[in-house]
Amino acid sequence: MPLNPQNNLNLRPAHTALWAQYQSVRAATMAIVTGLSPEDCTAQSMPDASPVKWHLAHTTWFFETFILEPYEHNFSAFHTEFRVLFNSYYNAVGAKHARPERGLITRPGLETIVAYRKNVDARIRALLDDANVSSHVLQLLTLGCHHEQQHQELILTDLKHLLSRNPALPALRESWPLTPIAAREQGWINFSAGVVEIGSDGQGFCFDNELPRHRQFCEAFSIARYPVTYGEFADFIADGGYARPELWLSAGWEIVQREGWEHPLYWRRESADAPWQTFTLRGEIEIARDVPIAHVSYFEADAFARWAGARLPTEAEWETAAAGLPIVGHFADNGIFHPLATDVFEPSAHQPLHMFGDVWEWTQSSYLPYPGFRAASGAVGEYNGKFMINQMVLRGGSCATPQSHIRASYRNFFPTDTRWQFSGVRLARECR
Amino acid sequence: MPLNPQNNLNLRPAHTALWAQYQSVRAATMAIVTGLSPEDCTAQSMPDASPVKWHLAHTTWFFETFILEPYEHNFSAFHTEFRVLFNSYYNAVGAKHARPERGLITRPGLETIVAYRKNVDARIRALLDDANVSSHVLQLLTLGCHHEQQHQELILTDLKHLLSRNPALPALRESWPLTPIAAREQGWINFSAGVVEIGSDGQGFCFDNELPRHRQFCEAFSIARYPVTYGEFADFIADGGYARPELWLSAGWEIVQREGWEHPLYWRRESADAPWQTFTLRGEIEIARDVPIAHVSYFEADAFARWAGARLPTEAEWETAAAGLPIVGHFADNGIFHPLATDVFEPSAHQPLHMFGDVWEWTQSSYLPYPGFRAASGAVGEYNGKFMINQMVLRGGSCATPQSHIRASYRNFFPTDTRWQFSGVRLARECR
Amino acid sequence: MPLNPQNNLNLRPAHTALWAQYQSVRAATMAIVTGLSPEDCTAQSMPDASPVKWHLAHTTWFFETFILEPYEHNFSAFHTEFRVLFNSYYNAVGAKHARPERGLITRPGLETIVAYRKNVDARIRALLDDANVSSHVLQLLTLGCHHEQQHQELILTDLKHLLSRNPALPALRESWPLTPIAAREQGWINFSAGVVEIGSDGQGFCFDNELPRHRQFCEAFSIARYPVTYGEFADFIADGGYARPELWLSAGWEIVQREGWEHPLYWRRESADAPWQTFTLRGEIEIARDVPIAHVSYFEADAFARWAGARLPTEAEWETAAAGLPIVGHFADNGIFHPLATDVFEPSAHQPLHMFGDVWEWTQSSYLPYPGFRAASGAVGEYNGKFMINQMVLRGGSCATPQSHIRASYRNFFPTDTRWQFSGVRLARECR
Amino acid sequence: MPLNPQNNLNLRPAHTALWAQYQSVRAATMAIVTGLSPEDCTAQSMPDASPVKWHLAHTTWFFETFILEPYEHNFSAFHTEFRVLFNSYYNAVGAKHARPERGLITRPGLETIVAYRKNVDARIRALLDDANVSSHVLQLLTLGCHHEQQHQELILTDLKHLLSRNPALPALRESWPLTPIAAREQGWINFSAGVVEIGSDGQGFCFDNELPRHRQFCEAFSIARYPVTYGEFADFIADGGYARPELWLSAGWEIVQREGWEHPLYWRRESADAPWQTFTLRGEIEIARDVPIAHVSYFEADAFARWAGARLPTEAEWETAAAGLPIVGHFADNGIFHPLATDVFEPSAHQPLHMFGDVWEWTQSSYLPYPGFRAASGAVGEYNGKFMINQMVLRGGSCATPQSHIRASYRNFFPTDTRWQFSGVRLARECR
Repeated sequence: MPLNPQNNLNLRPAHTALWAQYQSVRAATMAIVTGLSPEDCTAQSMPDASPVKWHLAHTTWFFETFILEPYEHNFSAFHTEFRVLFNSYYNAVGAKHARPERGLITRPGLETIVAYRKNVDARIRALLDDANVSSHVLQLLTLGCHHEQQHQELILTDLKHLLSRNPALPALRESWPLTPIAAREQGWINFSAGVVEIGSDGQGFCFDNELPRHRQFCEAFSIARYPVTYGEFADFIADGGYARPELWLSAGWEIVQREGWEHPLYWRRESADAPWQTFTLRGEIEIARDVPIAHVSYFEADAFARWAGARLPTEAEWETAAAGLPIVGHFADNGIFHPLATDVFEPSAHQPLHMFGDVWEWTQSSYLPYPGFRAASGAVGEYNGKFMINQMVLRGGSCATPQSHIRASYRNFFPTDTRWQFSGVRLARECR
Repeated sequence: MPLNPQNNLNLRPAHTALWAQYQSVRAATMAIVTGLSPEDCTAQSMPDASPVKWHLAHTTWFFETFILEPYEHNFSAFHTEFRVLFNSYYNAVGAKHARPERGLITRPGLETIVAYRKNVDARIRALLDDANVSSHVLQLLTLGCHHEQQHQELILTDLKHLLSRNPALPALRESWPLTPIAAREQGWINFSAGVVEIGSDGQGFCFDNELPRHRQFCEAFSIARYPVTYGEFADFIADGGYARPELWLSAGWEIVQREGWEHPLYWRRESADAPWQTFTLRGEIEIARDVPIAHVSYFEADAFARWAGARLPTEAEWETAAAGLPIVGHFADNGIFHPLATDVFEPSAHQPLHMFGDVWEWTQSSYLPYPGFRAASGAVGEYNGKFMINQMVLRGGSCATPQSHIRASYRNFFPTDTRWQFSGVRLARECR
Repeated sequence: MPLNPQNNLNLRPAHTALWAQYQSVRAATMAIVTGLSPEDCTAQSMPDASPVKWHLAHTTWFFETFILEPYEHNFSAFHTEFRVLFNSYYNAVGAKHARPERGLITRPGLETIVAYRKNVDARIRALLDDANVSSHVLQLLTLGCHHEQQHQELILTDLKHLLSRNPALPALRESWPLTPIAAREQGWINFSAGVVEIGSDGQGFCFDNELPRHRQFCEAFSIARYPVTYGEFADFIADGGYARPELWLSAGWEIVQREGWEHPLYWRRESADAPWQTFTLRGEIEIARDVPIAHVSYFEADAFARWAGARLPTEAEWETAAAGLPIVGHFADNGIFHPLATDVFEPSAHQPLHMFGDVWEWTQSSYLPYPGFRAASGAVGEYNGKFMINQMVLRGGSCATPQSHIRASYRNFFPTDTRWQFSGVRLARECR
Repeated sequence: MPLNPQNNLNLRPAHTALWAQYQSVRAATMAIVTGLSPEDCTAQSMPDASPVKWHLAHTTWFFETFILEPYEHNFSAFHTEFRVLFNSYYNAVGAKHARPERGLITRPGLETIVAYRKNVDARIRALLDDANVSSHVLQLLTLGCHHEQQHQELILTDLKHLLSRNPALPALRESWPLTPIAAREQGWINFSAGVVEIGSDGQGFCFDNELPRHRQFCEAFSIARYPVTYGEFADFIADGGYARPELWLSAGWEIVQREGWEHPLYWRRESADAPWQTFTLRGEIEIARDVPIAHVSYFEADAFARWAGARLPTEAEWETAAAGLPIVGHFADNGIFHPLATDVFEPSAHQPLHMFGDVWEWTQSSYLPYPGFRAASGAVGEYNGKFMINQMVLRGGSCATPQSHIRASYRNFFPTDTRWQFSGVRLARECR
């Protein structure tokens, strides 16, 4: 539901679509948090995760700080403390509240943050009503919408982590439909060697890290038709996958031993004979073999691939395989925040399936700048570039990603021990 | 206000006073948390502190677990998960939720915990209505009331710590009256050498750690008439107190250097020329010279004493000096959770003043068992005895202690680096 | 063998005994390290322990810094860097090399340190040859001898810890005689209540922490005739001693769980059926039931006592029980650095045995200043006083203590989790 | 000097060169450690570094474990404990002594390790004398020689780190000649876009991580003629380089703040006005502006490049620029373990200079497997592949690398915060 449907008449035609996008994104955020208590929105379960309330405020802060502060006539902050309190990592903006202490901010309360959101919405609308708003504002507004979509996913993954630390394993949604799940035949799609082009082709929005489009050389490769499933991962476990150092990168094996990893995040079983359970945002459920596996680290994805006699794809391979495929799949828009196994279009022997949605797919590529990369100018230049080290690229979006947020050139990135994202596995191998 | 005033008619006369005490203690707890938001009650600022909600639940758990579970007819837990969730440290009860993760429990919410309190209150009342309730139940009920009073103080100190971590420095109470403060003349009260008796004399309730009453030998000593004040502590700072290793115990000096201590907890000033401010539960205020200093660790108390050419009293000395004094002073009952300087009775040249209330006074005595100490039987035997190591005794209660909770033989105890309690200093020295 | 026997003729008669003591102590230190390689003398196995080479140098530094620097005519340091390098913890002396990095000092090598020792020995002798040497120098020289004796014990315990970390479990001495071991009947010696006097009586040398002699009141108590043995401790283990939280102080139980303690330090067995082995400075040996147990922490001593239905003695009780006993027992002078079970004098039903030597005995007393304690003046005032917190007192000396170093009033002290010293247990209880 | 020159007559001609290589490498290792004391060879300054003695033993263990154990007739270990004690990270071999405790191994002493080396040398020679020795043995022997050369470099860098922690800053060599240093004009060498081939071309030895040779696409780029110098880095510091977050990767800025980095490793100056000094293996010297900078982390290299308006080269760019250049430069063979500025061949406007030797050059490429990479079979397959994550590639060798060890396709790798290697910077940028 648009926030102010009647007002659209005032807008310049060129701004109507952007305002509709803004309204839609902002409303989607609030839809996700429906039903959460103020307590649910305040707690922080680990330094990597943030409270829901913080996400609600920070996404608003982004619009207020990067758009209203420089461009609003007679700018006056909603609350002067928020500039520091809800700054995530922008050194150019100034001081930041310490990340591990975000869960200690009990005031402002949730109600105040909701009011903050409404206040900024109205001021953004007022800015747009000005026929002379600059194109830079429009670009920043678009960026802010995509930024908020990223945080929609983080709200879900951070909340999932928080709820999982409660011994009662409470649910965000008491139930959602579990669709019929069908086993599918695995297979390989082959690609021949050659120079490929990757990166955004300039059609539609992209982040700076998707640019410039450039050439890479790929040796011939095969990519798996389907992502790896819970069942296949259970087989890996049953075959001693977490007890065989030869399957693991050295740093991965260290963490397996130090942390006592014996299975992916959120798995549990009552005894060695009992079926595996997994925690989801609708509570704990028994794993279903044919569902794409989620919540594995790069180390686990890599060890699984080695066990399976394969490897992970590079991002150039992944993007080449995804090029031209429709951006369809199981996304957050469905309101079912767990991977599914439903085929989203007619399977073909020549195309990989489920490339988009369900689970992010780890690639064997480090998150590094493309040749000729230039960070966006101004403070928003800190958005992506400064994180280009010691992380691996994931591709394709997940069941917690808004559908309109994803594209073939999209580069997500996380450190190699990260497990609380909906991160999964698609195999690749040398062409045989 | 009593919870069920009309019901008292049903009670046996012998139980009326106990039920009134119970009602009064339970109501006092709720009075403290009036005005706090669910968020305020959920967050945990450090492993040593607990969320307000946890305190509300744990004190109720104490009654449910130690009284209702063994003695209620057809006992049925309010919620089966609570037995683990709100167990603090009783190994005999079984599993415990990890202490540093208490702030992650967003569900049950505050409303459920309030309902839990009411439910247990009614069931305790029903138990008391039984004319044949055993004396052991009555003893446990009394213990539970004193236990809850301890947590009233912890609610205040834990909340103060939490609010202090919010850059906005919010207040629990927007304002309370600051009474006129008068400078007082320091002095020494002398006591001659001899065998003294300390420990509870068996009049009224006491914890097991106050028993048995026994003899100790005290060499002649002097004790200060008044506690050390904010002003005197500011003089210590100005004289380089935090930069002179010769004033400190070795372990204290290490923490000064490692943590960068330059003043007691909650002090701050804009610049070296600006007046010292201190955070209180009514917000930040300028320090007043003549108010008893609070929030110093044992190490700071000890270093101050050395700087002042004195030492801290032993607990035998303190109790000897306090023996026979009326239990009056500035307590939590006033609703002013900061030390005051108001004289509570007519000063005398022969008596120490402000021994009770305002601030806990560090003693030079380790918290160890009295000769012949026996821990209480059953699970409540874990209440005190197992903590008798590596802590120092504090005496006299504070502005966050309920008046009815304190007595001359009361032994509080904390590790030597603890600062978030209302812990202060009274000097002693050899008799000259 | 005296260092310069021929020179004694030059000394004033009053200085002859002191010089003999000095020579004897210095020679005893070198005798301990005989046979160690330069590598053995350089490594540091944990921050609490120091390299042998450091001990050799630091004890020499003590004489050079506190005696030669102020009193030698035309003082010139052996090496200017040593003042910082071998300062242990004297803030008044100035900078210190970081304790955990003592093992990184490969230069100066062992040979240079031996030369340093000889150089300082000669200069001390030259100072003593001066007939007008002040009594303060003589006092410091005496202090330095006792200081070096303390480090003789630390050389043995630190070296034992270092060698134990080598998978080959090498020995300091390839073998020493294991004397016949006889089982002894345990029993209790009773003492009636009353005021006792403890602390040094002024006969002979004492550290400042043994003063002033003062009165304490002891309720009636019993003390065990013999120390607890390896066999009794094995019984405690077999009875689940390390798995029953009710036997432990809370802080002790935490360390049991965190560190996985299942037995005292240096114990090992091949399997649950195999006999217990213990590492000693002559290599690993099978435990002998009747030998006094060593290498237990305060927490283990306290848990054992609770299991045995007893407690540890206070230091006043211990010193009362030891008063008047001859200072005989199994000391380092025997060259057997492991407790023995040989009776050192005719057992009596009225006296505790083995109070001196074999193992230090943990007391239930915190290491705190005696009433009226004054630290020694000058830099050596940092010797004892600043450590009077969060440590427990041990009494009686061990198989690694030189016999001439110990006395009934001697107060040793270590934190409650310390295990690498020869620390053992003697039980006490209320008089029945 | 060959170890057994007279014996060469017995060797098959095909083995003569290999034996000469073996002898030469083994002798070069011992030449480096000439003059070190047993203490110098035993200490370990941090978990990442190992004692010299450990390096001497581990390189020998490599030959004994991977060659003698499977191939020697009637194999008998020199010492059974060594198999565990000197295993670095080969899980397939079995248990390993804990890496951070390598410095606690005082026994075996240095003499025993030298004897171990001689023993294995003789047995390797005996194996080679067998005319039927398999080609696999010859390959492993070659691998072992290159392995030992890697450890020669680590001996130097680990020893440098150890000596730097000694306040006396002792030297390995008291002096070595500092050659004349000439300023050189910086410049850029351009390369056009296209498909390049990188990886070993199969001529001579290579590690498995240099294979397979494969194609990559490089956009047009320029590479700097000379490495960045100490002087240029001093300019970066003077321009606030360590205080400007916008120059740093986020993870780098965190470490700058957490560790207080204000300059590269081993820099020091007496005051802000004093000249910068740097610690070297001949002691501390004043920095010389025109010498290639060493001991910078990837983070510092990257920040410097951003400050200079450039970036680091990728490994494909670096290898393309190095292709065809002679492998000459300043290597460990000179015995001068510090970068120099001497031109090693006639500078040309069309060639980058100093690509080999002096300092390792950080590339912008993560250390990842080449397409089609296969780890070597057997336990030696753990040599490289399992470390292919969270590290960056360095190229070209350093003043601590043996000249015969390096080649254009050689891939060195370290984590991004590593500074104790001789790691430096060469700039690249998009072609203009």
